[in-house]
Amino acid sequence: MEIIRVPRIMQDTSKTFLLHGKTIGFVPTMGALHDGHLSLVRRAREENSITVVSIFVNPAQFGANEDFNIYPRDLEGDTEKLIKEKVDILFLPDASSIYPEGYLTYVNVEELSEKLCGAFRPGHFRGVTTIVAKLFNIVKPTRAYFGQKDFQQSVIISKMTYDLNMDIDIVVCPTVRDKDGLAMSSRNSYLDNSQRQAATIIYKCLKETSESIKSGIIEIKNVKRFMLDFLRKEPLISEIDYAGIYDISSLEELSAEKENMLLAIALRIGNTRLIDNMLINIKEERKY
Amino acid sequence: MEIIRVPRIMQDTSKTFLLHGKTIGFVPTMGALHDGHLSLVRRAREENSITVVSIFVNPAQFGANEDFNIYPRDLEGDTEKLIKEKVDILFLPDASSIYPEGYLTYVNVEELSEKLCGAFRPGHFRGVTTIVAKLFNIVKPTRAYFGQKDFQQSVIISKMTYDLNMDIDIVVCPTVRDKDGLAMSSRNSYLDNSQRQAATIIYKCLKETSESIKSGIIEIKNVKRFMLDFLRKEPLISEIDYAGIYDISSLEELSAEKENMLLAIALRIGNTRLIDNMLINIKEERKY
Repeated sequence: MEIIRVPRIMQDTSKTFLLHGKTIGFVPTMGALHDGHLSLVRRAREENSITVVSIFVNPAQFGANEDFNIYPRDLEGDTEKLIKEKVDILFLPDASSIYPEGYLTYVNVEELSEKLCGAFRPGHFRGVTTIVAKLFNIVKPTRAYFGQKDFQQSVIISKMTYDLNMDIDIVVCPTVRDKDGLAMSSRNSYLDNSQRQAATIIYKCLKETSESIKSGIIEIKNVKRFMLDFLRKEPLISEIDYAGIYDISSLEELSAEKENMLLAIALRIGNTRLIDNMLINIKEERKY
Repeated sequence: MEIIRVPRIMQDTSKTFLLHGKTIGFVPTMGALHDGHLSLVRRAREENSITVVSIFVNPAQFGANEDFNIYPRDLEGDTEKLIKEKVDILFLPDASSIYPEGYLTYVNVEELSEKLCGAFRPGHFRGVTTIVAKLFNIVKPTRAYFGQKDFQQSVIISKMTYDLNMDIDIVVCPTVRDKDGLAMSSRNSYLDNSQRQAATIIYKCLKETSESIKSGIIEIKNVKRFMLDFLRKEPLISEIDYAGIYDISSLEELSAEKENMLLAIALRIGNTRLIDNMLINIKEERKY
């Protein structure tokens, strides 16, 4: 595995690959890699001739009071995992080469960036779309891979790619979960044992709500109430940012049934903010 | 000359050129082509194996009370001129393929977009950077050509390209002028005979100011006053948006000498907004 730190060298390397007719699969990450990330890497390897993974903890997507400084970093462990996955290139830029002094340019997907997590993390998605646009221009991928756990992020990046005519396929891969259902996340490492146990309520809530909708026990207009009541049984939850059912494209809250719907939750256990979601396809379920 | 209207076809065509090792020179325009545009086209032809010109009157860069609806359009004349210049491809998208329903993504270069013309045309440069980012992703140019007449635009586009790691050389070409010095502009067609005559004061002011600075007759801190006094002699000027001397990178107004400086003017004659500028390199002038 080659480690490239300089954006211009990464760009020239990718250009050479493309000139030789190769396809490039790209997995942008903030490191602290878990099996969720590695599932994206494997998918990228299957579908492309070259696999590039980036690790960059992007300051522009963290709020002033968020966890940028304590965000888990494990470059040695990450490198080992990526070598094992036979990744071709690890792109590892430093902050000063990505945001040099006098940096001024931002990409923003309006409306979608203000909803759900955006309402609680102002500027977060603007930071995400900006770094992803930059990484796309540097790495020049044929396909880029994102996890469904960050569903809103994948909707916003798909929209940016479409709106700005970027010639890149966005591939969204299923959430990878621990045995007890908790979605893998680098932030899970912030949880102590009892918090980790409490966090399992998120997946339980999604599953229970999904099954209740499919079997017709609850109506769409009552889903939010149902989820909040479910989650409030867990005393270690310090705050619920949102829980409910949403349109999968506009991310608007739904009050009536649609064919495809998104259940989504964001909450805090102690100081740790956790998110998860589940897609519901009514038609598919009801045809049996 | 090939005329391509569909973004995806333009993109695939460019991709094929690049795969064959061709270089692409790109001149984005809003049509109503004059010798200024054609000088960019010639430069693009000289420096690249393929020349692409786009014509798209971009609604996103016009304010609600601006001249989008009456902006001059002359597709037949433009096409003839471009054929004569041996342009390879005219990219001619329609508005619905560039901004489809539900369009949400914007690129913005902060600070620089608020200064000079930006202060008088809110949102203008955001519209410019967004369309240029889109056209760059569609046309995939090796080099893109802009006129120095829109100096602030060229600074902002260069900054966007640099900040977002776009792999494109931005080439800024000298302003082309009529015999009496008026900078060529599609908006000159709005002027009647007496207004057209009055408009010559802009270039006269730039030249007189530049010479007075170089010969040491006026100090930098007095330049703005000098220019305003000069321009106010012309009664057909209905409004002066700005006139003064600026840093060529930050576009900040200068109060003391620098090696490279920008004289810039924006004013209205009747309802027609005209801009022009001149660069001053003190060192170069004084070495004689």
